[in-house]
Amino acid sequence: MGLNKNYLKRKTHTAEELAKGILGSNNILLSQTITLLESTKKEDNNIARKVLELVLYKTGNAIRIGITGVPGVGKSTFIESIGKLILKENRKIAVLAIDPSSQKSKGSILGDKTRMEDLTSNKNVFIRPSPAGIELGGVNRKTRETILLCEACGYDTIFIETVGVGQSEISVHSMIDCFLLLMLPGAGDELQGIKRGIMEMADIVVINKAEDEKDLKANRAVSNYKNALHLMPTTNSGWIPKVLSCSALTTYNINEVWKIILEFENYNKVNNIWNIKRNNQSTYWIKETINQTLYDNFYNNIKVKQSIKKVEQQVLEGKISSFKAAEIVLNSKK
Amino acid sequence: MGLNKNYLKRKTHTAEELAKGILGSNNILLSQTITLLESTKKEDNNIARKVLELVLYKTGNAIRIGITGVPGVGKSTFIESIGKLILKENRKIAVLAIDPSSQKSKGSILGDKTRMEDLTSNKNVFIRPSPAGIELGGVNRKTRETILLCEACGYDTIFIETVGVGQSEISVHSMIDCFLLLMLPGAGDELQGIKRGIMEMADIVVINKAEDEKDLKANRAVSNYKNALHLMPTTNSGWIPKVLSCSALTTYNINEVWKIILEFENYNKVNNIWNIKRNNQSTYWIKETINQTLYDNFYNNIKVKQSIKKVEQQVLEGKISSFKAAEIVLNSKK
Repeated sequence: MGLNKNYLKRKTHTAEELAKGILGSNNILLSQTITLLESTKKEDNNIARKVLELVLYKTGNAIRIGITGVPGVGKSTFIESIGKLILKENRKIAVLAIDPSSQKSKGSILGDKTRMEDLTSNKNVFIRPSPAGIELGGVNRKTRETILLCEACGYDTIFIETVGVGQSEISVHSMIDCFLLLMLPGAGDELQGIKRGIMEMADIVVINKAEDEKDLKANRAVSNYKNALHLMPTTNSGWIPKVLSCSALTTYNINEVWKIILEFENYNKVNNIWNIKRNNQSTYWIKETINQTLYDNFYNNIKVKQSIKKVEQQVLEGKISSFKAAEIVLNSKK
Repeated sequence: MGLNKNYLKRKTHTAEELAKGILGSNNILLSQTITLLESTKKEDNNIARKVLELVLYKTGNAIRIGITGVPGVGKSTFIESIGKLILKENRKIAVLAIDPSSQKSKGSILGDKTRMEDLTSNKNVFIRPSPAGIELGGVNRKTRETILLCEACGYDTIFIETVGVGQSEISVHSMIDCFLLLMLPGAGDELQGIKRGIMEMADIVVINKAEDEKDLKANRAVSNYKNALHLMPTTNSGWIPKVLSCSALTTYNINEVWKIILEFENYNKVNNIWNIKRNNQSTYWIKETINQTLYDNFYNNIKVKQSIKKVEQQVLEGKISSFKAAEIVLNSKK
C-alpha cells in the first residue's frame, strides 16, 4: 500500500482541478499535466487532453519563437541572456525543447538545467526538457499541446529549442510564429551540421559569439549571410530575413535581437499574416494528427512489420518495384 | 460497334506484349503503357504495373536529372539546347514534366511541344507532358513509374521538369540523381516565385540567358550565388553545388553544364553515394505509396469529408483543439 501512496496522491487531481490550477498560473499543476501528456499510458493522455480542451479558450496569446542551431552554438546561453532581458519587461517565459537525437546520443538539450541557472530560479520562467523515448511524431504533437498548456498558464513568451540536424524542424515550423537561426561566425564550416532547407526557413539569423561590436569575423559573417539571404526566396508575407550578430555571453546586441523579434511580430500582425499563419497551422495539425494515427495503426501491425522487412530486401535486390512492394504490404494486413 | 473499334484495338496488347515492345525500344508501345498508367481506370493501371514488373530488370541505368525553374526562365529551350548536344554522343533522351499548376491555370509546361521542335522530331527523343487531372501524389508516383518504363525502353538520360513553385519538388527530389536549378541573371527579384527550401536542394545552379561570356549581370549573379551556396549546408556526400552561367539560346556554356552533370555523376558513383541514394529512394517510395493509399482510403470516405469540414470550422473558432478535431474525424468513419 505504501508503495502506491505517491502514485495515488498524484492521481487525485481531476482534469477540472488541473485546468483550474493552470488557469490560476499554478506551475506545479502545469508540470503534472505535461507529465500526463508525456506518459505512455493512454488514460494519462486522456486526462491531459481533457485539460487542454478545458483551458483552450485561454490559449493563443503568446509569441512562439523557434530557436535552432547546432550543438555548441550557444542556444542555452542565448535563451538565458534574452530571457533575463525580457523578464524585466514583466514577460513570463516558457522554454521547451525538442531533441530527437538525445535518444541515440547521450547529449540532451536542456537536460542540464544548470546551464540556465539564472532562469530556472525565477518564478516567471518555466523550463521543460524534451521527453525521452517518444517517437518523433509524438514529440512534436506533444510539444504543440505543451505550448498551449503553457499559454493557458499565463506564459506569454515561448521558446522552442531544436538542434537543426533532424527531421523535427518542419514540424516545429508548424507550431511557431518566428523562426530564429543561431549561427557561429565561422562562415561556412560549422554549417555542415545543419540540415539543408533550414536556412531558408529562418525569419531572423543571429550570429552568436560576437564578443564585441568590432568583431571582424562576426561582421563579415553578417554581411555574407545578408547577401546570401537576399538571393533566397522570401516568405509569402514579404518579410526579408534579418541578420545580426550578438554575444549571449556579454549580452552585446541581445537587446537588438529582441527588438527585431518584436518588429517581426508587429509586421505580421499589421499584415494579418499572424492569424493566417496560426489558422494554417491549426489546419495542418488536424491532418498531421490524423495521418500520424493512421500511420501508427498500420505500421504497428505485426504482419505489416514482417512484410515490410521482406519486401524491402526484394526491392533492393531489384526483384520487385517499390510499388509492387507497397501493394504486398498493404495486402498483408487484410 | 464501330465506335469501340479503336478502343478495342488498343486493348489487344497484353502486358507481355507491351513489355516485349518496350524492351525492344518501341516508342509507341512505351507511350501506350504510360497512357494505361495515367488512365483513371484501375484495370488499365494494373496492366501498366504488370508491364513495369516484367521490365524491371532492365531499369536503373539512366541518369535522372531534375530541372527546376520558374516559368520564363527558359526550361524548354535549355533542355532542347543540352539535348541537341548530347544526342551527338548517341544518348537517348526522355523528357518528362510535372506541373500540378496546369490543372488550375491554362499554362502547362511541355503542353506546347513545338517549343522543343528539334527534339520532338528526333527518334532518340521521347517527350511526355504531365497528365492533367491527376492529384499531386498520383502524378509523382506515376512519374517515377514512367521513368522506369523509359529506362527499360533504352533511354539513358531522363530530364524531369518542374516549375519549382509547388509541393512537387520534394517528391521529385526522391526520384532523381541530380537536381539542377535554372535561374535568371536578375539576382533576387525573380526568386519570389521559387518556393523556399528549393535553393538548398540544388546540386547545380545554372544562370540562364547569359547571352555571352562577357555578360556582367550574369557573371555577378554567378559570383553571388557561389557565395550564397558556400554559406548553405552541403549534401551528405560533400558535393559543393556548382554555379555557372549559360545561354540556352546561343548554346554558350551548354557544353560546360553537361560536363558538370557528368562530373557530379562520377563524384557520386566513385563515392558510392549513387547507389545509397537510389536505395534510399526505393525505400522511400515503398512507404510513400503505402501512406498515400492509407490516406486516400481514409479521406475519400464521405463521412470523413463531412466531418473534416465541420471540425475545421470549430478549430478556427477556437472551440476545440486540432487534436480533438482529429479524434472526432478518426471516429467518424467507424
